[in-house]
Amino acid sequence: MARIAVVAGDGIGPEVVAEARKVIDAALPGVEATEYDLGAARYHRTGEVLPDSVLTELAGHDAILLGAVGDPTVPPGVLERGLLLKLRFSFDQYVNLRPSRLWPGVTSPLATVKPGEVDLVVVREGTEGLYAGAGGTLHRDTPAEVATEESLNTRHGVERVVRDAFARAGRRERRKVTLVHKTNVLTHAGSLWARAFEAVAAEYPDVSTEYQHVDAAAMFLVTQPQRYDVVVTDNLFGDILTDIAAAVTGGIGLAASGSINPDGTYPSMFEPVHGSAPDIAGRGLADPVAAVLSAALLLDQLGHADAAARITAAVGAELAARTPGEAVRTAEVGDRIAAQVAA
Amino acid sequence: MARIAVVAGDGIGPEVVAEARKVIDAALPGVEATEYDLGAARYHRTGEVLPDSVLTELAGHDAILLGAVGDPTVPPGVLERGLLLKLRFSFDQYVNLRPSRLWPGVTSPLATVKPGEVDLVVVREGTEGLYAGAGGTLHRDTPAEVATEESLNTRHGVERVVRDAFARAGRRERRKVTLVHKTNVLTHAGSLWARAFEAVAAEYPDVSTEYQHVDAAAMFLVTQPQRYDVVVTDNLFGDILTDIAAAVTGGIGLAASGSINPDGTYPSMFEPVHGSAPDIAGRGLADPVAAVLSAALLLDQLGHADAAARITAAVGAELAARTPGEAVRTAEVGDRIAAQVAA
Ligand SMILES: CC(C)[C@H](C(=O)O)[C@@H](O)C(=O)O
Ligand SMILES: CC(C)[C@H](C(=O)O)[C@@H](O)C(=O)O
Repeated sequence: MARIAVVAGDGIGPEVVAEARKVIDAALPGVEATEYDLGAARYHRTGEVLPDSVLTELAGHDAILLGAVGDPTVPPGVLERGLLLKLRFSFDQYVNLRPSRLWPGVTSPLATVKPGEVDLVVVREGTEGLYAGAGGTLHRDTPAEVATEESLNTRHGVERVVRDAFARAGRRERRKVTLVHKTNVLTHAGSLWARAFEAVAAEYPDVSTEYQHVDAAAMFLVTQPQRYDVVVTDNLFGDILTDIAAAVTGGIGLAASGSINPDGTYPSMFEPVHGSAPDIAGRGLADPVAAVLSAALLLDQLGHADAAARITAAVGAELAARTPGEAVRTAEVGDRIAAQVAA
Repeated sequence: MARIAVVAGDGIGPEVVAEARKVIDAALPGVEATEYDLGAARYHRTGEVLPDSVLTELAGHDAILLGAVGDPTVPPGVLERGLLLKLRFSFDQYVNLRPSRLWPGVTSPLATVKPGEVDLVVVREGTEGLYAGAGGTLHRDTPAEVATEESLNTRHGVERVVRDAFARAGRRERRKVTLVHKTNVLTHAGSLWARAFEAVAAEYPDVSTEYQHVDAAAMFLVTQPQRYDVVVTDNLFGDILTDIAAAVTGGIGLAASGSINPDGTYPSMFEPVHGSAPDIAGRGLADPVAAVLSAALLLDQLGHADAAARITAAVGAELAARTPGEAVRTAEVGDRIAAQVAA
């Protein structure tokens, strides 16, 4: 039976993860879960973000379920770079998978978009680009200060994520991949991405392709999200585009993600796209749907497609039954979905 | 009287620029305009993008009015880097100004946003960041290929654009500046931006401030664009965010921009945010409003606030009188606005 590591984290993380675990237990009884105490609280208590020993222990699991990490009391970057990105990079989670569907029952902020019409997935590169941490500062706090950030892109890293996107598109109905970059300005990285994309596309003659600049894609996600099937893009563009995709499909309260190591060498990690939302933490008001859908991605990745599909269907039923504007009670949502999954 | 250089450019550029000039003539008779033939056509004809002699001539003008450059037949980057960005960088146009208003008569794709509710301006840095052109490629077309892009940020460059944003906010009703960056991942550049922002904010005690990560800002521009007054951000984030802002306020057909050298050492340049749209070029179907509003920004920058205000008001009347879904005829729109301005 699967052994998963659970990092509930900060803010609403523990609340939503509790519901996700309820649902996992209902869908696939017997999954073994070990809790790891990481995040802002531990950092404040011990000064530690991610001890090597914990990294090693995490590596021994089949997958990681993460709630949310982050708190305004921690300087920017400490937990992001030290924990979240450390895990994505250490475990070579190069496919950052972010599906966006406009579910029946959910109202899009877009006037003309109807439930069922949007069903896209962004395959965001997860181990390169501007997230590499390459950069520096000279002459800090003087008028001569300069700060750099470097985007590192390898043929190896780009080609493998592009191939994953094409393979996914090949299994979908519309079989279309959109490459998003900024080839007209970022000519070096853009050219590498475009050439890798073209080479992989040749291996998938039944998948159609298009290219868009990131500014155009950001716009079209607002005016015409229906046009996308699979979108493949770099780490930073993917960060931005997936928040837009989430916004037009009902908000980050519903957006799930997987940081996937498709090779299976390391555990993949699944987490809601939302943050720790300290303003509503501890009050049972957070929507656990994003965490529950992340759990479904987790089970799917571990080969339990059937259990995953039952969770997804139960989420669909939950959302379809909601009254627009109605407040959500975290535990009740989890209970309802778990009951539906078990039924 | 003002002497302006006109670069009509490619695709719909000449069509929309013709209307913008009509409107300038109506608002401020006597502006001297010299046409410069730059863009895809010249590149194909002569291989030249922007000869030094032309750059020098352009520098002798009070401002530049640009239509659009670009064509699918030109490799990505050639005209962008060689012409558009070359001008922005050579003329130190560090304030890339992009106002977004939801005009009465214009329907937002957002269901709940009403005309008059959105009135924001993005102050995008125009001479640094990932647009610096710093990057390279090694081992091209081999499995070992690596491509880099470097974001260069100086205290000098960041502080001056942040100061411009605060000065603008101080002249607006809501007096609020939002800094958008990604300080939790781009820790070096993010820290420089955050510290420069804080330092300048201290000089403007009556302007309120907030900070948002770029992914969150992209989301909030969709769910709550009303919340923004002045947004200040780096070159690439500004590129993406202004297309979202345009999308939620009726599309890039209405979005104007100015690449401004506030010091007045070099001419500022004004251009619609839209591209050359080769698919509809030459058919009189392009909406010239973005070009006309860019002309208003131009006159405003040259000290003709009154003429600029009359153009803006005439555009307001034009948009308010439109029937949603109605096709636009380029020259008729220009004629109507010019008549209104002259009246
Ligand atoms: C918290 C942050 C480091 C992270 C990212 O930028 O990847 C988040 O925004 C996300 O999208 O998962
Ligand atoms: C054409 C391109 C170089 C340009 C940019 O990225 O700045 C355009 O997208 C814009 O926003 O003016």
